[in-house]
Amino acid sequence: MAGGDEIRPGEIAVDLPPETSAGLYFIGRIHTPWTRRAECPRRGAPDGPICTLEVDPRWARALEGIGNHPRLQILYWMHEARRDLVLQSPRRDGSTRGTFSLRSPVRPNPIASSVVDLVNVDGLLLQVRGLDCLDGTPLLDVKPEACPLA
Amino acid sequence: MAGGDEIRPGEIAVDLPPETSAGLYFIGRIHTPWTRRAECPRRGAPDGPICTLEVDPRWARALEGIGNHPRLQILYWMHEARRDLVLQSPRRDGSTRGTFSLRSPVRPNPIASSVVDLVNVDGLLLQVRGLDCLDGTPLLDVKPEACPLA
Repeated sequence: MAGGDEIRPGEIAVDLPPETSAGLYFIGRIHTPWTRRAECPRRGAPDGPICTLEVDPRWARALEGIGNHPRLQILYWMHEARRDLVLQSPRRDGSTRGTFSLRSPVRPNPIASSVVDLVNVDGLLLQVRGLDCLDGTPLLDVKPEACPLA
Repeated sequence: MAGGDEIRPGEIAVDLPPETSAGLYFIGRIHTPWTRRAECPRRGAPDGPICTLEVDPRWARALEGIGNHPRLQILYWMHEARRDLVLQSPRRDGSTRGTFSLRSPVRPNPIASSVVDLVNVDGLLLQVRGLDCLDGTPLLDVKPEACPLA
Protein backbone atom coordinates (compact mmCIF):
# COMPACT_ATOMS: atom_id res chain seq x y z
CA MET A 1 0.00 0.00 0.00
CA ALA A 2 1.32 3.40 -0.93
CA GLY A 3 0.22 4.61 2.50
CA GLY A 4 -3.11 6.26 3.18
CA ASP A 5 -5.26 7.57 0.38
CA GLU A 6 -3.62 10.97 0.11
CA ILE A 7 -1.70 11.90 -3.02
CA ARG A 8 1.98 12.49 -2.33
CA PRO A 9 4.16 15.10 -4.03
CA GLY A 10 4.82 14.06 -7.62
CA GLU A 11 2.04 11.49 -7.78
CA ILE A 12 -0.52 11.77 -10.58
CA ALA A 13 -4.08 10.45 -10.69
CA VAL A 14 -6.25 10.02 -13.79
CA ASP A 15 -10.00 9.76 -14.24
CA LEU A 16 -11.09 6.15 -14.03
CA PRO A 17 -13.12 4.74 -16.93
CA PRO A 18 -16.86 5.46 -16.56
CA GLU A 19 -17.69 1.75 -16.30
CA THR A 20 -16.02 -1.47 -15.37
CA SER A 21 -15.49 -4.07 -18.07
CA ALA A 22 -15.96 -7.38 -16.20
CA GLY A 23 -16.98 -8.62 -12.78
CA LEU A 24 -15.17 -10.65 -10.15
CA TYR A 25 -16.56 -13.14 -7.66
CA PHE A 26 -14.90 -13.19 -4.27
CA ILE A 27 -14.38 -16.92 -3.64
CA GLY A 28 -13.44 -16.61 0.03
CA ARG A 29 -11.45 -14.57 2.53
CA ILE A 30 -7.86 -14.54 3.75
CA HIS A 31 -7.15 -14.54 7.47
CA THR A 32 -3.82 -12.97 8.43
CA PRO A 33 -2.27 -11.47 11.58
CA TRP A 34 -2.36 -7.95 10.11
CA THR A 35 -5.30 -5.66 10.78
CA ARG A 36 -3.84 -2.34 9.63
CA ARG A 37 -2.17 -1.60 6.33
CA ALA A 38 0.91 -0.20 8.04
CA GLU A 39 1.51 -3.58 9.70
CA CYS A 40 1.57 -5.61 6.49
CA PRO A 41 4.98 -6.73 5.24
CA ARG A 42 6.06 -5.32 1.89
CA ARG A 43 6.14 -8.81 0.51
CA GLY A 44 5.25 -12.22 1.95
CA ALA A 45 8.09 -14.56 2.91
CA PRO A 46 8.32 -18.35 3.09
CA ASP A 47 9.21 -18.08 6.78
CA GLY A 48 6.38 -15.65 7.50
CA PRO A 49 3.40 -16.49 9.70
CA ILE A 50 0.79 -19.04 8.73
CA CYS A 51 -2.23 -17.43 7.09
CA THR A 52 -5.52 -19.17 6.34
CA LEU A 53 -7.51 -19.12 3.13
CA GLU A 54 -11.18 -19.74 3.84
CA VAL A 55 -12.91 -20.83 0.65
CA ASP A 56 -16.69 -20.43 0.25
CA PRO A 57 -18.65 -23.72 0.37
CA ARG A 58 -19.87 -23.14 -3.18
CA TRP A 59 -16.35 -23.94 -4.42
CA ALA A 60 -15.61 -26.89 -2.14
CA ARG A 61 -15.16 -29.46 -4.87
CA ALA A 62 -12.82 -27.15 -6.79
CA LEU A 63 -10.28 -27.83 -4.02
CA GLU A 64 -10.02 -31.53 -4.90
CA GLY A 65 -6.38 -32.45 -5.43
CA ILE A 66 -5.03 -29.18 -4.05
CA GLY A 67 -2.93 -31.07 -1.49
CA ASN A 68 -0.76 -32.41 -4.31
CA HIS A 69 0.65 -28.93 -4.91
CA PRO A 70 3.12 -27.79 -2.25
CA ARG A 71 3.39 -24.35 -3.85
CA LEU A 72 0.37 -22.35 -4.89
CA GLN A 73 -0.20 -19.05 -6.63
CA ILE A 74 -2.80 -16.97 -4.80
CA LEU A 75 -4.65 -14.04 -6.37
CA TYR A 76 -6.42 -11.63 -4.02
CA TRP A 77 -8.15 -8.28 -4.14
CA MET A 78 -6.53 -5.32 -2.42
CA HIS A 79 -9.87 -3.83 -1.59
CA GLU A 80 -8.56 -0.76 0.21
CA ALA A 81 -6.25 0.41 -2.57
CA ARG A 82 -7.07 3.41 -4.72
CA ARG A 83 -7.08 2.66 -8.43
CA ASP A 84 -6.41 5.94 -10.19
CA LEU A 85 -2.68 6.65 -9.70
CA VAL A 86 -0.45 6.42 -12.77
CA LEU A 87 2.67 7.86 -11.11
CA GLN A 88 3.55 6.87 -7.55
CA SER A 89 6.19 7.93 -5.08
CA PRO A 90 6.90 4.87 -2.93
CA ARG A 91 9.76 6.62 -1.13
CA ARG A 92 7.70 9.72 -0.45
CA ASP A 93 10.58 11.86 -1.70
CA GLY A 94 9.00 13.35 -4.82
CA SER A 95 10.69 10.80 -7.08
CA THR A 96 8.07 8.83 -9.00
CA ARG A 97 7.66 5.63 -10.92
CA GLY A 98 4.93 4.43 -13.22
CA THR A 99 2.34 2.19 -11.61
CA PHE A 100 3.11 -0.70 -13.98
CA SER A 101 6.78 -0.62 -12.99
CA LEU A 102 5.80 -1.20 -9.35
CA ARG A 103 4.13 -4.06 -7.48
CA SER A 104 2.23 -1.61 -5.27
CA PRO A 105 -1.39 -2.58 -4.57
CA VAL A 106 -2.37 0.84 -5.93
CA ARG A 107 -3.19 0.10 -9.60
CA PRO A 108 -6.19 0.10 -11.96
CA ASN A 109 -7.01 -3.48 -11.02
CA PRO A 110 -5.68 -4.08 -7.49
CA ILE A 111 -5.06 -7.80 -7.96
CA ALA A 112 -2.17 -9.08 -5.87
CA SER A 113 -0.36 -12.28 -6.75
CA SER A 114 1.79 -14.26 -4.33
CA VAL A 115 3.40 -17.68 -4.41
CA VAL A 116 2.92 -19.48 -1.10
CA ASP A 117 3.88 -22.75 0.56
CA LEU A 118 0.90 -24.94 1.37
CA VAL A 119 1.14 -26.09 5.01
CA ASN A 120 -2.17 -27.86 5.58
CA VAL A 121 -5.60 -28.48 4.04
CA ASP A 122 -8.63 -28.98 6.28
CA GLY A 123 -11.86 -28.93 4.32
CA LEU A 124 -12.42 -25.38 3.12
CA LEU A 125 -9.41 -24.04 5.05
CA LEU A 126 -5.94 -23.84 3.49
CA GLN A 127 -3.03 -22.90 5.70
CA VAL A 128 -0.21 -21.22 3.80
CA ARG A 129 2.96 -19.21 4.34
CA GLY A 130 4.05 -16.33 2.12
CA LEU A 131 1.22 -13.79 2.20
CA ASP A 132 1.41 -10.07 2.97
CA CYS A 133 -2.17 -8.78 3.10
CA LEU A 134 -4.72 -7.46 5.56
CA ASP A 135 -6.93 -9.78 7.56
CA GLY A 136 -10.21 -10.16 5.69
CA THR A 137 -8.76 -9.64 2.21
CA PRO A 138 -11.04 -11.09 -0.50
CA LEU A 139 -9.70 -14.20 -2.21
CA LEU A 140 -9.92 -14.38 -6.01
CA ASP A 141 -8.10 -17.52 -7.11
CA VAL A 142 -5.89 -20.42 -6.13
CA LYS A 143 -3.74 -22.18 -8.75
CA PRO A 144 -0.72 -24.47 -8.77
CA GLU A 145 2.30 -22.21 -9.08
CA ALA A 146 4.09 -22.03 -12.40
CA CYS A 147 7.31 -20.21 -11.73
CA PRO A 148 9.20 -20.46 -15.00
CA LEU A 149 12.50 -20.77 -13.15
CA ALA A 150 11.39 -23.53 -10.77
CA MET B 1 -9.16 -23.80 -22.26
CA ALA B 2 -10.91 -27.00 -21.37
CA GLY B 3 -12.10 -27.15 -24.98
CA GLY B 4 -15.40 -25.78 -26.14
CA ASP B 5 -18.13 -24.90 -23.70
CA GLU B 6 -19.60 -28.36 -23.38
CA ILE B 7 -19.39 -30.27 -20.10
CA ARG B 8 -17.31 -33.44 -20.43
CA PRO B 9 -18.01 -36.71 -18.63
CA GLY B 10 -17.21 -36.32 -14.93
CA GLU B 11 -17.15 -32.53 -14.96
CA ILE B 12 -19.35 -30.69 -12.47
CA ALA B 13 -20.74 -27.15 -12.69
CA VAL B 14 -22.19 -25.10 -9.84
CA ASP B 15 -24.54 -22.13 -9.80
CA LEU B 16 -22.56 -18.91 -9.95
CA PRO B 17 -23.18 -16.30 -7.24
CA PRO B 18 -26.13 -14.04 -8.05
CA GLU B 19 -23.92 -10.95 -8.22
CA THR B 20 -20.30 -10.07 -8.80
CA SER B 21 -18.31 -8.58 -5.93
CA ALA B 22 -15.97 -6.13 -7.67
CA GLY B 23 -15.33 -4.71 -11.12
CA LEU B 24 -12.34 -4.83 -13.43
CA TYR B 25 -11.14 -2.25 -15.92
CA PHE B 26 -9.65 -3.62 -19.10
CA ILE B 27 -6.46 -1.55 -19.49
CA GLY B 28 -5.67 -2.62 -23.04
CA ARG B 29 -5.58 -5.58 -25.40
CA ILE B 30 -3.10 -8.31 -26.23
CA HIS B 31 -2.21 -9.03 -29.84
CA THR B 32 -1.08 -12.60 -30.50
CA PRO B 33 -0.81 -14.90 -33.54
CA TRP B 34 -3.64 -17.14 -32.26
CA THR B 35 -7.22 -16.49 -33.38
CA ARG B 36 -8.86 -19.75 -32.22
CA ARG B 37 -8.65 -21.33 -28.79
CA ALA B 38 -7.47 -24.63 -30.23
CA GLU B 39 -4.38 -22.88 -31.64
CA CYS B 40 -3.19 -21.41 -28.34
CA PRO B 41 -0.22 -23.13 -26.68
CA ARG B 42 -0.92 -24.74 -23.32
CA ARG B 43 1.56 -22.38 -21.75
CA GLY B 44 3.64 -19.52 -23.12
CA ALA B 45 7.36 -20.10 -23.66
CA PRO B 46 10.34 -17.74 -23.61
CA ASP B 47 11.14 -18.76 -27.19
CA GLY B 48 7.54 -18.31 -28.32
CA PRO B 49 6.46 -15.65 -30.80
CA ILE B 50 6.51 -11.97 -30.00
CA CYS B 51 3.13 -10.74 -28.77
CA THR B 52 2.17 -7.09 -28.30
CA LEU B 53 0.46 -5.50 -25.34
CA GLU B 54 -1.44 -2.38 -26.43
CA VAL B 55 -2.11 -0.21 -23.39
CA ASP B 56 -4.95 2.32 -23.44
CA PRO B 57 -3.79 5.97 -23.61
CA ARG B 58 -5.43 6.66 -20.25
CA TRP B 59 -2.64 4.65 -18.58
CA ALA B 60 0.29 5.96 -20.62
CA ARG B 61 2.19 7.48 -17.71
CA ALA B 62 1.80 4.28 -15.68
CA LEU B 63 4.31 2.74 -18.12
CA GLU B 64 7.13 5.06 -17.02
CA GLY B 65 10.16 2.98 -16.05
CA ILE B 66 8.78 -0.25 -17.46
CA GLY B 67 11.85 -0.67 -19.66
CA ASN B 68 13.96 -1.26 -16.55
CA HIS B 69 12.26 -4.60 -15.96
CA PRO B 70 13.35 -7.32 -18.40
CA ARG B 71 10.80 -9.75 -16.97
CA LEU B 72 7.19 -8.79 -16.35
CA GLN B 73 4.18 -10.49 -14.86
CA ILE B 74 1.11 -10.03 -17.06
CA LEU B 75 -2.46 -10.54 -15.86
CA TYR B 76 -5.16 -10.95 -18.48
CA TRP B 77 -8.80 -11.92 -18.73
CA MET B 78 -9.73 -15.19 -20.40
CA HIS B 79 -12.96 -13.72 -21.66
CA GLU B 80 -14.18 -16.84 -23.46
CA ALA B 81 -13.83 -19.22 -20.52
CA ARG B 82 -16.86 -20.52 -18.62
CA ARG B 83 -16.71 -19.82 -14.88
CA ASP B 84 -18.88 -22.44 -13.23
CA LEU B 85 -16.89 -25.70 -13.33
CA VAL B 86 -15.57 -27.04 -10.03
CA LEU B 87 -14.39 -30.39 -11.40
CA GLN B 88 -12.69 -30.56 -14.79
CA SER B 89 -11.45 -33.36 -17.00
CA PRO B 90 -8.48 -31.96 -18.90
CA ARG B 91 -7.69 -35.33 -20.46
CA ARG B 92 -11.31 -35.91 -21.52
CA ASP B 93 -11.09 -39.43 -20.08
CA GLY B 94 -13.58 -39.11 -17.22
CA SER B 95 -10.83 -38.52 -14.65
CA THR B 96 -11.32 -35.17 -12.96
CA ARG B 97 -9.41 -32.60 -10.93
CA GLY B 98 -10.60 -29.67 -8.88
CA THR B 99 -10.46 -26.34 -10.67
CA PHE B 100 -8.08 -24.84 -8.10
CA SER B 101 -5.59 -27.68 -8.68
CA LEU B 102 -5.41 -26.75 -12.37
CA ARG B 103 -4.20 -23.70 -14.27
CA SER B 104 -7.01 -24.05 -16.81
CA PRO B 105 -8.61 -20.72 -17.87
CA VAL B 106 -11.94 -22.21 -16.75
CA ARG B 107 -12.35 -20.92 -13.18
CA PRO B 108 -14.59 -18.59 -11.17
CA ASN B 109 -12.36 -15.63 -12.03
CA PRO B 110 -10.66 -16.38 -15.33
CA ILE B 111 -7.55 -14.33 -14.63
CA ALA B 112 -4.45 -15.72 -16.32
CA SER B 113 -0.96 -14.88 -15.08
CA SER B 114 2.19 -15.27 -17.16
CA VAL B 115 5.77 -14.17 -16.73
CA VAL B 116 7.17 -12.78 -19.98
CA ASP B 117 10.40 -11.38 -21.36
CA LEU B 118 10.14 -7.74 -22.38
CA VAL B 119 11.56 -7.33 -25.90
CA ASN B 120 10.75 -3.73 -26.74
CA VAL B 121 8.78 -0.70 -25.56
CA ASP B 122 7.38 1.78 -28.11
CA GLY B 123 5.00 4.23 -26.50
CA LEU B 124 1.86 2.33 -25.57
CA LEU B 125 3.07 -0.89 -27.22
CA LEU B 126 5.05 -3.51 -25.29
CA GLN B 127 6.52 -6.40 -27.23
CA VAL B 128 6.93 -9.52 -25.10
CA ARG B 129 7.59 -13.25 -25.39
CA GLY B 130 5.91 -15.89 -23.23
CA LEU B 131 2.17 -15.50 -23.75
CA ASP B 132 -0.37 -18.16 -24.64
CA CYS B 133 -3.67 -16.37 -25.23
CA LEU B 134 -6.06 -15.47 -28.02
CA ASP B 135 -5.59 -12.38 -30.13
CA GLY B 136 -7.69 -9.59 -28.62
CA THR B 137 -7.51 -10.87 -25.03
CA PRO B 138 -8.23 -8.07 -22.52
CA LEU B 139 -5.23 -6.90 -20.52
CA LEU B 140 -5.65 -6.42 -16.76
CA ASP B 141 -2.25 -5.62 -15.33
CA VAL B 142 1.49 -5.36 -15.91
CA LYS B 143 3.92 -5.66 -12.98
CA PRO B 144 7.62 -6.38 -12.52
CA GLU B 145 7.91 -10.12 -12.01
CA ALA B 146 8.57 -11.40 -8.51
CA CYS B 147 9.41 -15.05 -8.94
CA PRO B 148 10.53 -16.14 -5.48
CA LEU B 149 13.10 -18.51 -6.95
CA ALA B 150 14.66 -16.00 -9.33
